[in-house]
Amino acid sequence: MAGTFISFEGPDGAGKTSALKTITATLTPELGDRLTITREPGGNPISESIRAIILDRANTEMDYRTEALLYAAARRQHLAQTILPALAADQLVLCDRYVDSSVAYQGAGRQIGEDQVAKMNEFATDGLLPDLTIYFDVPAEVGLKRIQAHRDPQKVDRLDVEKTAFHDRVRAAYLKLQRAQPERIKLIDATQSPEQVVDAALNLIKQTASTYFTTGI
Amino acid sequence: MAGTFISFEGPDGAGKTSALKTITATLTPELGDRLTITREPGGNPISESIRAIILDRANTEMDYRTEALLYAAARRQHLAQTILPALAADQLVLCDRYVDSSVAYQGAGRQIGEDQVAKMNEFATDGLLPDLTIYFDVPAEVGLKRIQAHRDPQKVDRLDVEKTAFHDRVRAAYLKLQRAQPERIKLIDATQSPEQVVDAALNLIKQTASTYFTTGI
Repeated sequence: MAGTFISFEGPDGAGKTSALKTITATLTPELGDRLTITREPGGNPISESIRAIILDRANTEMDYRTEALLYAAARRQHLAQTILPALAADQLVLCDRYVDSSVAYQGAGRQIGEDQVAKMNEFATDGLLPDLTIYFDVPAEVGLKRIQAHRDPQKVDRLDVEKTAFHDRVRAAYLKLQRAQPERIKLIDATQSPEQVVDAALNLIKQTASTYFTTGI
Repeated sequence: MAGTFISFEGPDGAGKTSALKTITATLTPELGDRLTITREPGGNPISESIRAIILDRANTEMDYRTEALLYAAARRQHLAQTILPALAADQLVLCDRYVDSSVAYQGAGRQIGEDQVAKMNEFATDGLLPDLTIYFDVPAEVGLKRIQAHRDPQKVDRLDVEKTAFHDRVRAAYLKLQRAQPERIKLIDATQSPEQVVDAALNLIKQTASTYFTTGI
C-alpha cells in the first residue's frame, strides 16, 4: 500500500476537529493535491444513509451491538470509497476518527467489550490500521464543558445524551489503546493551547510522512 | 435461555418460505400463541431501514464487506427486538433465515471468506445459534428456475442480478456447514414434492421441540 494514513482520535471536545482545520490550512500550500482530508462517514451516500439511522433520535430501541455494526459498515464503505483509493494514489490521508473510536465508544463507553469490538472491526477494515494515530487527550469533564459551550442546544442528538461516566470509560479506553500500541498511537495533551496542540500534531505528521515534505522536520 | 429457536435456511427458490407458511398453518391450532414465526429483517423500523439500504439498486458502489456488516446489523436488531424476547417468553421460534445465510451468501457467494463472515456474525449474535437449523437443499439451477417462474420481473432487485456460479458457491457453503455441524443443521431434499418437504420439516421440528407437543412425534 502506497500513501500514508493518519487518523485523529479523542473524546468529544478534545479539539481534534478544529486542530485538523488549522493543520489542513497549514499543509495545503506545500502538499496541494497530495493531501486528502476526510472524516467518517465521509460524504458517500451509503455511509451517510447508515449514519442517519444511527443518529435518528426516534431509534431509541437500537441495540448497542447493532449500533457498533452500523458504525463498522459506514467505516468500511468510507474506507472502500475514499481512503483506499487515496492511499493507492499515494496521498497523505488525514482522517478524523477511525477504528479506535469504535473500540473506545462502543467497546468501553457502551460496555460491549473492547476486544470484541476491535475484532469485529478487523472484518470491516480487513486489518488496515493507520500508520499513525494522533490521540488528543483531555479529561472527560474538560471535553464535555467545551461541547456544551459550542453546541447549539437544538442540535443535540441521541449520542450527546450520555453521562460523564460514559466519557470517563471512553478516555480510559483510549489511554489503554495508546499504552498497548505506543508505536502507532501518539498522545497529545489537548488541555494545552490550540497553538501548542497544532504544533505537536504537525511535528508527529511530519515525522511519519517525512517523504511528503521537502523541508524536513 | 428458555424457548426453542429453529431457523430455516436454503438457497433462493428452495421453497422454504412457502413450506414455512404451510407449517405455520399446521402448528398454529395446537401451539397457538406459544409459536412465533418471523423472518429477517423482522418488521422493526431499524432493521427495515438497514434492509432498504442493502436493497437500494442505486447503491451500486456498495462494498461486499459493508453489505455483510449491514446484514449483521439488521440481524442483531431482529434478534434483540423479536427473537430474544420470544425465547425469554418460552416461545417456539421459527425464523426464515439467520446467520448461516450470511456465511453462505456473503462468505461464499461474495467470496469474502466463510470463516471471516462467521466470526463477524458471532459479534452480531453474541454466539447464539439455533437449536435446530432446517436446510432446504436444491441444486442452484433448480432454485433459480423456480425464482424466475414466480417473480414479477419488475421487482427484480440488486441481489437477483447474480449468476449461477454465485448460487453454486452458496449451495456448496450450505452443504459444508451441514457437514461441519450435523447436530444442529439437518438437510431436507427440497426437490421432493412440497408435501414431502413439509412432512420432513415437521418431523424435525417435533423432534427438537417435543415439549411443545402433547401428541409426541
